[in-house]
Amino acid sequence: MYEGAVQDLIDELGRLPGVGPKSAQRIAFHILNADPTDARRLAGSIERVKQQIQPCKRCFNFAQSPECRICMDQRRDPSLLCVVEDARGIVAIERTHEFGGRYHVLGGAISPLDGIGPDQLHVRELIARIDDENVAEVILALNPSAEGDATSSYLTRLLEPIGIKVTRIASGLPVGGDLDYADEVTLGRALMGRRDVRG
Amino acid sequence: MYEGAVQDLIDELGRLPGVGPKSAQRIAFHILNADPTDARRLAGSIERVKQQIQPCKRCFNFAQSPECRICMDQRRDPSLLCVVEDARGIVAIERTHEFGGRYHVLGGAISPLDGIGPDQLHVRELIARIDDENVAEVILALNPSAEGDATSSYLTRLLEPIGIKVTRIASGLPVGGDLDYADEVTLGRALMGRRDVRG
Repeated sequence: MYEGAVQDLIDELGRLPGVGPKSAQRIAFHILNADPTDARRLAGSIERVKQQIQPCKRCFNFAQSPECRICMDQRRDPSLLCVVEDARGIVAIERTHEFGGRYHVLGGAISPLDGIGPDQLHVRELIARIDDENVAEVILALNPSAEGDATSSYLTRLLEPIGIKVTRIASGLPVGGDLDYADEVTLGRALMGRRDVRG
Repeated sequence: MYEGAVQDLIDELGRLPGVGPKSAQRIAFHILNADPTDARRLAGSIERVKQQIQPCKRCFNFAQSPECRICMDQRRDPSLLCVVEDARGIVAIERTHEFGGRYHVLGGAISPLDGIGPDQLHVRELIARIDDENVAEVILALNPSAEGDATSSYLTRLLEPIGIKVTRIASGLPVGGDLDYADEVTLGRALMGRRDVRG
């Protein structure tokens, strides 16, 4: 429908997640009308991310050097290891400013239907790190989904015999939420996770 | 929050229309996990569109050569000229397969609040084409918005003294729509645009 180069761009943009045909067209028009410098900066940032970013060789977070910034930070407590599915989990937890340990990115969650088992995830590397880095506590911070829960259960069974502390982040009502609007599963988890008010 | 190159990409993606911070992050992760060839193809298509695409020197559609494919097509009827706001209008009308004439892209609509008047649009070039190309009918196909309507009225006043036929595409109920769900303005336009059933 469009001239070759325009259609190519619309097709490429339409392959991105969450970008439908209408959005792809809208973004393409934006790029067509944009300053050439801005368009070149966007193209350059795509190229650079593929050239410069690799998995951290320790925790599998995205890294611009062999190890990521968090692993290289000497102020982080190596005895606390927080396991997340992907780097988005790291960013979410870093935003809380409540965690001073290190991370381990599994690279997903166990999902037999998608052919993802423990061997497709960085589970072996996790076990090795617990030993090498004298980890005292592993905090499981996977997504509260069926796959995340299955992975947490699997890791719990795997890690408990090692004799280290294994914890899971709490599920419950979001702060500012409303009891009446909470779904049954979340409310059920909040009930099961109830704590003595005296601490 | 992220390593430099990752954050740069998220920032660049977040500047695109309709891409919020969460989508920008999601698209960036998709690119990070994508095959390097796919990412390079996306970056390349952005670069190419800026290098190869320019406004058609006749109708201001996007063109990969001095004139766009529609203007170069000898089978198109040059006596019928359809005026649209931007190239999306051309694509929308081409999809109907009901129009065999040529187009003229105004480059927007009159909007005094945004400082867009006739001089900021390709109005002068439209007048010149009507003369040069022996246009018999100008079809106004601007968006049915306040700005589009104002521009249609302006062009009607400008073109009528020239003595050519000036028409506007019909406003009314969308096919497959429901009277009950139509807004008052659309339904009002449909009433005003009523036609004798015998043709």
